[in-house]
Amino acid sequence: MREVRVLEIKQSVFADNDRQAQELRQELKEKGVFLLNLMSSPGAGKTTTLMRTIEGLRDTLKIGVMEADIDSDVDARTISGSGARVIQLHTGGMCHLDAEMTRQGLAGLETEGLELAILENVGNLVCPAEFDTGAVKNAMILSVPEGHDKPLKYPLMFSICDVVLINKIDVLPYFDFDLDQCREYIHMRNPKAKIIPICARTGEGVREWTKWLEEEVKLWREGR
Amino acid sequence: MREVRVLEIKQSVFADNDRQAQELRQELKEKGVFLLNLMSSPGAGKTTTLMRTIEGLRDTLKIGVMEADIDSDVDARTISGSGARVIQLHTGGMCHLDAEMTRQGLAGLETEGLELAILENVGNLVCPAEFDTGAVKNAMILSVPEGHDKPLKYPLMFSICDVVLINKIDVLPYFDFDLDQCREYIHMRNPKAKIIPICARTGEGVREWTKWLEEEVKLWREGR
Repeated sequence: MREVRVLEIKQSVFADNDRQAQELRQELKEKGVFLLNLMSSPGAGKTTTLMRTIEGLRDTLKIGVMEADIDSDVDARTISGSGARVIQLHTGGMCHLDAEMTRQGLAGLETEGLELAILENVGNLVCPAEFDTGAVKNAMILSVPEGHDKPLKYPLMFSICDVVLINKIDVLPYFDFDLDQCREYIHMRNPKAKIIPICARTGEGVREWTKWLEEEVKLWREGR
Repeated sequence: MREVRVLEIKQSVFADNDRQAQELRQELKEKGVFLLNLMSSPGAGKTTTLMRTIEGLRDTLKIGVMEADIDSDVDARTISGSGARVIQLHTGGMCHLDAEMTRQGLAGLETEGLELAILENVGNLVCPAEFDTGAVKNAMILSVPEGHDKPLKYPLMFSICDVVLINKIDVLPYFDFDLDQCREYIHMRNPKAKIIPICARTGEGVREWTKWLEEEVKLWREGR
């Protein structure tokens, strides 16, 4: 069994999360670390997508991953197989990470030399959407088995995400999922959202996603 | 388009939710209304399972349904097609329902003449587990596409549920889901949890679930 570091995150004491997030974003800019916040429902495929993302970008970018969970370290153990720097964050029952908690995670991960830090947020479509983590970009994964009506039910999550990955498209034939309808619902919430259908398990569509991410990191670095 | 009643739930002002929940449970006992709290991740199949549940029990029990969501009334519209009494509850962005919010929902639903009231909680494996709603029994749905490791990651949810429905078993061949391993993980969290594999879409296994629920309602009524 692979050993991974586990960090118990403490509850934040700051009332003004937006300010904490802005400060963290500024600090990371100075260090040259692009922070991506990855969100989804439980079991939508965040960890498998991350494995594919690391595989696609590890020759180009130095990547670190923070795996946030209520309990267990199964995801961090999986990611540690990719060769990326990784730390497991335990939220002590909390349903999301805010900027101060993310800061604790980054300190545990050690950002020295990193170019891309990815936060795998707690599996939840409600609470994580309410807290700015200090990330440059928010990404979410909606998986086909969850249904195409999710943007109607979780409006805030879809409205704050820059990119929505529609995962598990290999099982589209077995589910009543309307991809065009889903695109329409997502764009109702956020007309600018980039939508990329993928299958993290087989790798289908993943190149478009890693290209998008690589380009965003490049633009951000140039604009610093 | 079917019209349904929508109730905007107000945030609770009570600090002691456990006491509120006990009081609500006692009141419902006096009225003879069995309250079931149904939880799951987004898209695990709560509404489809509810449709099957109503179909199986509507000749035996008078059923009312509260559909809790952040936004939209798509689920309440679906349920209203079953003939059961239904109300849509909007939580105003909140990720769960507590006992006082459930009380508001029951008042909106009108419990007069009801024998079984079902709360379809917000799709979330974290927050709803932390609040006693006043229900007699807690049920949750874990769907096959989410993966068999969920009891490791969301321990509280699995530990408070009396019954776990493993839904979407029709797609078992297309997912890497180990049913025996899942049972073992669930029983690690809660050795007494009843586990019932179902496919709400086709109806497979649903009879075992409705029989269990009918029996629980009967035992509760006899014990009042």
